[in-house]
Amino acid sequence: MNNKLEILNVDLGDRSYPIYIGEGLLTQPAFVEKHIVSNQVLIVTNETIAPMYLSQLVDQLPVGVDVRTAILPDGERFKTLEYLNKIFDSLLENRCNRQVTLIALGGGVIGDMTGFAAASYQRGVSFIQLPTTLLSQVDSSVGGKTGVNHRLGKNMIGAFYQPKAVLIDTTVLSTLPAKELSAGLAEVIKYGAINDVDFFVWLEKNIEYLLAQKADALIYAIKRSCEKKAEIVEKDEKESGIRATLNFGHTFGHAIETHMGYGEWLHGEAVAAGMCLAAELSVQLGWMSSDEAVRIKTLCIKANLPVKAPEEMDGADFIKHMKVDKKNTSGSIRLVLLKNLGEAVIYDCIDESLIKKVIDGKDRDVS
Amino acid sequence: MNNKLEILNVDLGDRSYPIYIGEGLLTQPAFVEKHIVSNQVLIVTNETIAPMYLSQLVDQLPVGVDVRTAILPDGERFKTLEYLNKIFDSLLENRCNRQVTLIALGGGVIGDMTGFAAASYQRGVSFIQLPTTLLSQVDSSVGGKTGVNHRLGKNMIGAFYQPKAVLIDTTVLSTLPAKELSAGLAEVIKYGAINDVDFFVWLEKNIEYLLAQKADALIYAIKRSCEKKAEIVEKDEKESGIRATLNFGHTFGHAIETHMGYGEWLHGEAVAAGMCLAAELSVQLGWMSSDEAVRIKTLCIKANLPVKAPEEMDGADFIKHMKVDKKNTSGSIRLVLLKNLGEAVIYDCIDESLIKKVIDGKDRDVS
Repeated sequence: MNNKLEILNVDLGDRSYPIYIGEGLLTQPAFVEKHIVSNQVLIVTNETIAPMYLSQLVDQLPVGVDVRTAILPDGERFKTLEYLNKIFDSLLENRCNRQVTLIALGGGVIGDMTGFAAASYQRGVSFIQLPTTLLSQVDSSVGGKTGVNHRLGKNMIGAFYQPKAVLIDTTVLSTLPAKELSAGLAEVIKYGAINDVDFFVWLEKNIEYLLAQKADALIYAIKRSCEKKAEIVEKDEKESGIRATLNFGHTFGHAIETHMGYGEWLHGEAVAAGMCLAAELSVQLGWMSSDEAVRIKTLCIKANLPVKAPEEMDGADFIKHMKVDKKNTSGSIRLVLLKNLGEAVIYDCIDESLIKKVIDGKDRDVS
Repeated sequence: MNNKLEILNVDLGDRSYPIYIGEGLLTQPAFVEKHIVSNQVLIVTNETIAPMYLSQLVDQLPVGVDVRTAILPDGERFKTLEYLNKIFDSLLENRCNRQVTLIALGGGVIGDMTGFAAASYQRGVSFIQLPTTLLSQVDSSVGGKTGVNHRLGKNMIGAFYQPKAVLIDTTVLSTLPAKELSAGLAEVIKYGAINDVDFFVWLEKNIEYLLAQKADALIYAIKRSCEKKAEIVEKDEKESGIRATLNFGHTFGHAIETHMGYGEWLHGEAVAAGMCLAAELSVQLGWMSSDEAVRIKTLCIKANLPVKAPEEMDGADFIKHMKVDKKNTSGSIRLVLLKNLGEAVIYDCIDESLIKKVIDGKDRDVS
């Protein structure tokens, strides 16, 4: 086993925290131990992850710590206030106080829910992220966005709340379904597309190594993704400006997820298709060459990701869902588009026909 | 009508906000108007308050503002995640975006729920407090504690989240049931007891004027209470230290509310009994003279407030509920006691028999 360890620091003043990236961290007690603040721990995980990694994690916790677990059903459709309340049930049934540490052991759904539970339980307790999917390792575990879905919109209820630490163990990806590895790569590609052409080029060259889970390639890609995200979050924690560029592909993507029903398309799959649609719109506006849009599409295809809107959805469907997106200001639809590869810009779209054209236009299947 | 207007500023850096106190503010558009940030407003109120004040408030809002309302059932038992979700339903059904302003028109339950909805909707939108009970005017509308109850504990789920402004219209107290006016006075008395002997003496002299709702007396008592609270919150927004002294009477009080079922005892009534019990414990520890404890009890009696534990509860009941209180650290029960009238101290009680003695002891009905 390669014991290379990378440590990043997310610098947010008194809310700063480290991200550890390496192989086999889950079986090295030192990392999790130093971020536990009292003798009360609640591990939140799901029915898929629990049989694989829960006992490994419990074994690493210091003697004398009272470890409880809350095991939720697996899936985006359980990312609701109702299931969030099950975490509160566990906390209260186990008489956890304000010194409790929550540990999120799972993917983005578990991380987002655990983070929001930590933000809200007794108005704020500590939590540690232990992301088990590539998507959550490179995206949702960094930056403090937490929350749950509402039947009328994704991630509509939540808080900005930072973890005490993030532990990224690349070894756990070996049990991740290939489809989910690809979904994670969508967010990795996004970082290259929005502000790091060198990384995009690196990805074009190394995508096969990532799909084959070569440790060095994975650690490098995860580190560079987390660095990019941390850099942007440090500048704009509450998303009043530049952080919004991280939503490249997400406005189209959320529309797909909402329309298809949560869980039908993986988040990363919807983001991949969304990036390709946003790139096409950028081309239509004359901001980007169609060659560059093709490079994004090609890289997504190599990563086994969808690059088109679902057949079931037309332009009007997209617009309906996009209008409730959090990022909108009155009357317009906020999109992240590209002015050349590697340069994201925020665009308040007031002309809905532009969006319809990208979805419904004849050029849908071209390029 | 006396048009005296008092303005306090709660100084919390970029989360600072004004508190306006006066008669008839609800019918003066200028105050609410300047704190609305876009043309979307959602007023959250309840079935009792809506018929009395909702149309008055709506009439004051600027032309062109899209005003929606969410009317919840009245009562502490609806202060749950389930009913919180009804606010999110309204927000999403009305396609409210991040620029929406929520207005809480009601007592502490509406204020706490609306504040938590504002904290959580799209990870944070603006809100204004328009408290309609004395209790919420002097306590819950100031300081940014928001949240809902859980079946296993009061206010267990929430956030620290500050309003953009608080508008306190003393005129609305004329429709408040006498029982609720008294409940509000419990918190007013608390401010005197914990750190303002002069104010306590003023209350001893003026309690009848307050009960008779003399405007000058009310405005003075509300202003002084809000000043006290603001002063403490400014020093310790997140309750890591001195803010905890505001919980004088509340640990016993929460135990009463939880045991009796939310809504059976008004919060202020439970706090009044709780203050008398905490004062008795302070006397037992030799920290305060029994004369001073009697003064607290006498003032509460004059304000028509309960001064004893409910007959249904024994010491063990109290301890069971107190053990899940948010303020506890491992193994002890955190209480706020008095070292003399006007000087609150935080006490981590590890000897449960002290608490049992106050509740079960023969001295229960003495003094």
